[in-house]
Amino acid sequence: MNVDGVSLAQAYAEATADPLSVAQQALQAAQQLPAAFVSLCQKRALREAEAARQRWQAGQPLSPLDGVPVVWKDLYDLAGQITSAGAKVRMHDAPAACDCALASVLSRAGMVSLGKTNLSELAYSGLGLNPHFGTPANAVAQGPVRVPGGSSSGSAVAVAKGVAPIAMSTDTAGSIRIPAAFNGLVGYRSSSQRYDFSGVTPLAVSLDALGPITTSVRDAMAVDALLLGKPFAARPLPVAGLRLRVDDALLEDARIQPEVKANLLAAAERLQAAGASLEYGRVEAFHQALALIEQVGWLGSAEAFARYESLLDSPDAEHLDPRVRTRLEAARHFPASRQVRLYQASRSLRQHIADELDGAMLLTPTVAHVAPLLAPLQDDAALFAASNLATLRLTMPGSMLDMPGVALPSGTGEAGMPTSVLVSGPSGSDAHLLRVALTLEPYVRGVAR
Amino acid sequence: MNVDGVSLAQAYAEATADPLSVAQQALQAAQQLPAAFVSLCQKRALREAEAARQRWQAGQPLSPLDGVPVVWKDLYDLAGQITSAGAKVRMHDAPAACDCALASVLSRAGMVSLGKTNLSELAYSGLGLNPHFGTPANAVAQGPVRVPGGSSSGSAVAVAKGVAPIAMSTDTAGSIRIPAAFNGLVGYRSSSQRYDFSGVTPLAVSLDALGPITTSVRDAMAVDALLLGKPFAARPLPVAGLRLRVDDALLEDARIQPEVKANLLAAAERLQAAGASLEYGRVEAFHQALALIEQVGWLGSAEAFARYESLLDSPDAEHLDPRVRTRLEAARHFPASRQVRLYQASRSLRQHIADELDGAMLLTPTVAHVAPLLAPLQDDAALFAASNLATLRLTMPGSMLDMPGVALPSGTGEAGMPTSVLVSGPSGSDAHLLRVALTLEPYVRGVAR
Repeated sequence: MNVDGVSLAQAYAEATADPLSVAQQALQAAQQLPAAFVSLCQKRALREAEAARQRWQAGQPLSPLDGVPVVWKDLYDLAGQITSAGAKVRMHDAPAACDCALASVLSRAGMVSLGKTNLSELAYSGLGLNPHFGTPANAVAQGPVRVPGGSSSGSAVAVAKGVAPIAMSTDTAGSIRIPAAFNGLVGYRSSSQRYDFSGVTPLAVSLDALGPITTSVRDAMAVDALLLGKPFAARPLPVAGLRLRVDDALLEDARIQPEVKANLLAAAERLQAAGASLEYGRVEAFHQALALIEQVGWLGSAEAFARYESLLDSPDAEHLDPRVRTRLEAARHFPASRQVRLYQASRSLRQHIADELDGAMLLTPTVAHVAPLLAPLQDDAALFAASNLATLRLTMPGSMLDMPGVALPSGTGEAGMPTSVLVSGPSGSDAHLLRVALTLEPYVRGVAR
Repeated sequence: MNVDGVSLAQAYAEATADPLSVAQQALQAAQQLPAAFVSLCQKRALREAEAARQRWQAGQPLSPLDGVPVVWKDLYDLAGQITSAGAKVRMHDAPAACDCALASVLSRAGMVSLGKTNLSELAYSGLGLNPHFGTPANAVAQGPVRVPGGSSSGSAVAVAKGVAPIAMSTDTAGSIRIPAAFNGLVGYRSSSQRYDFSGVTPLAVSLDALGPITTSVRDAMAVDALLLGKPFAARPLPVAGLRLRVDDALLEDARIQPEVKANLLAAAERLQAAGASLEYGRVEAFHQALALIEQVGWLGSAEAFARYESLLDSPDAEHLDPRVRTRLEAARHFPASRQVRLYQASRSLRQHIADELDGAMLLTPTVAHVAPLLAPLQDDAALFAASNLATLRLTMPGSMLDMPGVALPSGTGEAGMPTSVLVSGPSGSDAHLLRVALTLEPYVRGVAR
């Protein structure tokens, strides 16, 4: 499995040398991937790149990432552009008056915004199909087209194809982690309180989280440092001190493809051989979250319905992707008492998972399978619904428990497609989690032992 | 209007002299009010009182409240006693294994627990009727019996009748403030995060709050200090610096009895004459909360239904008060999307009210009317439902916005019954609110000008 994505280090080296030609090439590359983008902001990009070029020439860059390109999932506002949320019906909306909070921060650091990436309509599926702006093809698959994963479909494809080293994305039930997994990338879902949501279109506010898709953990840490205004330091931890939890009961699930499981266990063995402490055992809070989602329901359904109720009741509803509309409508009569139970369980399980992990980080498969083929899903609504649920299954509990998580490429599985390991920790453990992920990354990729 | 309740200062003086005879008299007084109590804990009370007596004799009291009696709304666990929640069906439950957190604190300070006070079944009404343990008669009404107010019916009656100076109570939609108002007492609903809920039966966790019913603000402050482990100091503020907000638009509501309104405005005038700064004007967040409750629904319904769903689905449901069961059942099909909207509105309105009051404290009527007559409500379910809603109307917004509030006696209205003014502030403003309430109290009572 090979991803052609550009690392921040490469992008940085090129930007330092000539940010304007970097931006021009990136915009050209983006035009070769029309389904990955909803819109480009060429003028802005060239203006920002030219300013960066002058700053580098003067020896006065705004930050180490001055002149480096970045793309934005089309839920983030960029001043003067419509925020489509992947929906045709939003294209009559007024353009955003100003940049979202995170774009302001990255712009002030000199990063060059190229445009807005495609997504599942309203960010409401894990597969990445979009009938309005096209479905970006999975960036890794050779042969028949496979899904890109969603909802941050265009983000992952743009990074995997080397358009930009960083795609700022969102994750409600797996929307960063899944497309990262399906395209052999790193995807970091932050704890929900870590970044500023101003100017980002919400889906389900108690589950929404932000984060980048990148080609490496190091790059995710670089953008995290910039977003928080902290100095950047990506120092791995000693492997010998790492405590990692593997939920072996979870891995018995027959829905998990053999290579997905084998790659995770092989990574765990490599880490153990290098001195990490591997703890095998059922993680009760994770299983309880899985069971609640299956038996009571998903917290996000009613929140998404509440958000889009007036749209669903308007004539515009006809212009929604039927796959999205049907699933949104399914929550219309979801009872409040169940929602209350889910909120209460989610609150208490957030405590339990922290107690249960007790300082260890959790390793699970990011998704139970590799990216499925696109064609069979296109016209079969029932297959789409089943495949979507199966794809989201292992990332939903982390969202419910507000666990930050980093999806790491773990080798290849069926049809040579990338598999992925998710390392996650309790709410708020982001700084430590990122360092653990940085340390694990070569072992999970299989390039260190 | 005269309340015979005993102040903490009196109780304190008596307890200092002879805590054992204080406890004996209090237990006797409690036995004269059978409907005000679900159960007494005579042995415990006498044991605690005797221990207090010995400590006072030795000159080694545990706290200034050592030996002072306290009663507990029967939602608070006391070790060895069943916590009835005012419901007959809970009487098969096992006795509580240990004291609730707040009872532990007050016991360690030497206070003497006399027993558990009656309440509306499951704390689910504002009027205080209870078919299982009897409806305590309003403590102030002369002539035909009037309701005590609820849900902390027994708490208010026990304090008004002088059994104990402090009744620890709970307030979800007005359950401390309303019975305090109806019996000419002080009722303090704290911000939801102020006290430890361990061992208290919840009703609707996002609205539940704890606090005492007392005869004076000073006494509420004394128990607050003890519960928080802080030194007690009840120093009024200079009246000249007080900023008070009166929502005059709210007072135009025809449902507010003329004397209730007149007594509030007279108090405001006395305060203004004494130098306080009175700001008259519509408080938008309060009106929005009122409108949401009327048009979208009440946050607590689905939470209460979720809590009691298994009871409602069991054969025990038949033994519930039909007035309670019907109202609980009404939330069975309440849609989750509305609940989500209420949660989101409640979160944002909590911010807005703080911004809007901008340091001022809000004065509203606690209840729009005085305690209604009991007889007409007994057998008329529709009248009961309407009267219950009307009674809760002005305290519900404060709960939704997590506003701490102190109900203060403001004189008399129809049939010589007490009226009440509620002073409330933004979430977390308790310490300042209590001092403001202490300062206002004589002006609101009309004994200072």
